[in-house]
Amino acid sequence: MARIVMKFGGTSVADIARIRNVARHVKREVDAGHEVAVVVSAMSGKTNELVGWVQDASKAEGSNLNIYDAREYDAVVASGEQVTSGLLALTLQAMGVNARSWQGWQIPIKTDGAHGAARIAEIDGSFLIKRFGEGQVAVVAGFQGIAPDNRLSTLGRGGSDTSAVAIAAAVKADRCDIYTDVDGVYTTDPRIEPKARRLSKISFEEMLEMASLGAKVLQVRSVELAMVHRVRTFVRSSFEDPDAPGMGDLLNPPGTLICDEEEIVEQQVVTGIAYAKDEAQISLRRVADRPGVSAGIFGPLAEANINVDMIVQNISEDGKFTDITFTVPSGDLDKALFVLGKVKETIGFDAVQSEPGMSKVSVIGIGMRSHAGVAATAFKALADRSINIRAITTSEIKISILIDGPYTELAVRTLHSVYGLDKQ
Amino acid sequence: MARIVMKFGGTSVADIARIRNVARHVKREVDAGHEVAVVVSAMSGKTNELVGWVQDASKAEGSNLNIYDAREYDAVVASGEQVTSGLLALTLQAMGVNARSWQGWQIPIKTDGAHGAARIAEIDGSFLIKRFGEGQVAVVAGFQGIAPDNRLSTLGRGGSDTSAVAIAAAVKADRCDIYTDVDGVYTTDPRIEPKARRLSKISFEEMLEMASLGAKVLQVRSVELAMVHRVRTFVRSSFEDPDAPGMGDLLNPPGTLICDEEEIVEQQVVTGIAYAKDEAQISLRRVADRPGVSAGIFGPLAEANINVDMIVQNISEDGKFTDITFTVPSGDLDKALFVLGKVKETIGFDAVQSEPGMSKVSVIGIGMRSHAGVAATAFKALADRSINIRAITTSEIKISILIDGPYTELAVRTLHSVYGLDKQ
Repeated sequence: MARIVMKFGGTSVADIARIRNVARHVKREVDAGHEVAVVVSAMSGKTNELVGWVQDASKAEGSNLNIYDAREYDAVVASGEQVTSGLLALTLQAMGVNARSWQGWQIPIKTDGAHGAARIAEIDGSFLIKRFGEGQVAVVAGFQGIAPDNRLSTLGRGGSDTSAVAIAAAVKADRCDIYTDVDGVYTTDPRIEPKARRLSKISFEEMLEMASLGAKVLQVRSVELAMVHRVRTFVRSSFEDPDAPGMGDLLNPPGTLICDEEEIVEQQVVTGIAYAKDEAQISLRRVADRPGVSAGIFGPLAEANINVDMIVQNISEDGKFTDITFTVPSGDLDKALFVLGKVKETIGFDAVQSEPGMSKVSVIGIGMRSHAGVAATAFKALADRSINIRAITTSEIKISILIDGPYTELAVRTLHSVYGLDKQ
Repeated sequence: MARIVMKFGGTSVADIARIRNVARHVKREVDAGHEVAVVVSAMSGKTNELVGWVQDASKAEGSNLNIYDAREYDAVVASGEQVTSGLLALTLQAMGVNARSWQGWQIPIKTDGAHGAARIAEIDGSFLIKRFGEGQVAVVAGFQGIAPDNRLSTLGRGGSDTSAVAIAAAVKADRCDIYTDVDGVYTTDPRIEPKARRLSKISFEEMLEMASLGAKVLQVRSVELAMVHRVRTFVRSSFEDPDAPGMGDLLNPPGTLICDEEEIVEQQVVTGIAYAKDEAQISLRRVADRPGVSAGIFGPLAEANINVDMIVQNISEDGKFTDITFTVPSGDLDKALFVLGKVKETIGFDAVQSEPGMSKVSVIGIGMRSHAGVAATAFKALADRSINIRAITTSEIKISILIDGPYTELAVRTLHSVYGLDKQ
């Protein structure tokens, strides 16, 4: 007997037929004798609809500004998960499974007071564990909790993943299964490289890099949480037949296990190739090389809510001036240039050069820590294809390369092949 | 300065444009210096959608039975009011009005444990009153509360009226305004009798009779509650221009005041004519006239959830046998006959005669207590029109007459005229 948390996203609970399918997945685990908590998102499209209403409602007449009370946003938007948790409990009951729904405030899932993007502060797992003991399945509304002001809070988009992992940690679950519309984590995007393979295991650290790079399988924060609490997390498909052979396998169900790197016996040097399109490159020329200059640039950008990604700064030749290059989402380029224009005088730089339509391609692998030459392999492979490298950043387990957008697919395929990921 | 509770139904909050209109009604009262609590229903159609999902979800495969856990029903269905309360709070904020939403469990509105059709047990008004003191408008999700098991409960269809009146009683409001899609209570249905007049006042007792007879302006329970707690309740239209002259009149806003009969100075003998279509008449012939026979008939019907309306039983001639006539909704006739067939042996009666397609027309007026001849006037007027009277029941303030369905409109118009209700 194991204790399992199962999470189902919006497309998996989009209508009653799909909710019934979800219930069959749950029943399979219950029938196998496991203790189960299920975390559900809102029906797909529902959260967007609710957010749209919030934006409409909070528009003052004749104004285009959209400022709203995040506490009311939370009250409205949290209703989506409330609905699906009740519907799944009912569906399970109709299948003869003892189940009840739990709202965030009932468990309670206590969060901080940052309405609209709250962080989970504390979950008391004892109530759920008591119900497990009584043979009851807990169906938990994801994405929501209760803030210190006794009002509903939500965790930000994709927050149900985080709910699931946090609950898994709170009840000391053996496994947290994230059911989604893909059947696992791949070595790269299969739409670009049909030879992409599903990984059977990936380390938390690698998954973090993959997730933050737009492999939108899991919310980044949920991976962080899983890493901190060492929650073995499975990414698997909700659309497979719930009763197909192997689906109920306790140790090796179909999907990708995100786990501690120690668990991964045969480590690859490179685990996957990720990419992010629509980046804009901004270069500041002849920036005065003195303390505080970076803060002077990136502080105002952060205040303007612009998400700066790669940052490259070379050591200056003369100790006086340097060039700084960084990337922002293409959609934020104009806003970024406006902000930079305002701080030009204070910072002191010669010129701003910018270019939208860039892509960032990343090579990720925990094994590269102990293998030399991983980066060089990438550079040579891209050069062989005449793909121009605009900028490079590296971390312990990742090399990111900025290239011109139209070369994205070619670069991904090239790197996927050169690191041997094509081979089964 | 007054303290006012305002309630808006589903059609009044059907979309953001209408919610904005509701907010203008609220702002008018706030600007006049009043303390305001607003109670909202779900967007029209939303509750039906949610109920439909609940029914779908709880259908066991291959079964037509529809039994579901009312606690989960409540969790799902209560979400509709949660959404509108948040949206109205946001809309008010965008207009510069200090407002916040309250869910039933936050106030809390404590109910009994009868999930799906709970009754309000207790409301602590002190939190709301404290916020009034801080100049804040309370936007309360109607229809919902919290049950002793710490789970969401709902009050049954139309329950938001009851929420509003209960909150008005809890905060000792000067007035409870029920905004709806009609502009008041009429002497009869204006679709049948264009000369129907809007009543400026009606007593609680009369309104109870009108409401239970299908003048579906107000939920019956809310009228009972208003009567017990002497809540002055206004029925008025949400679709009128919120800023039209007189709309903010504290004592005589446009609409119908439901109040204590002492407040009604010029009492009419008859206040209104109500009707209910699609009644079926059932007559049991030669029923043994002994104690317990009524219980033997109406007990099984109640258990089968059949709503018996009029009951007529004459004193038997010989002390041995009597005839019993009663009505049920036409849709329940077959079920009722089936139930009666099963108890025929036990009860002992000769025959069952039944006829669907009847109508019940009722004359209602508190003044008839002290006026003789009110009933005789009705009988004569109907006889003059050759309308056959099938059965008659009376109470202190009501005469109900069962007639053949096709004569409904003629009977309503005839009675409306004969009691002088046509005159302005």
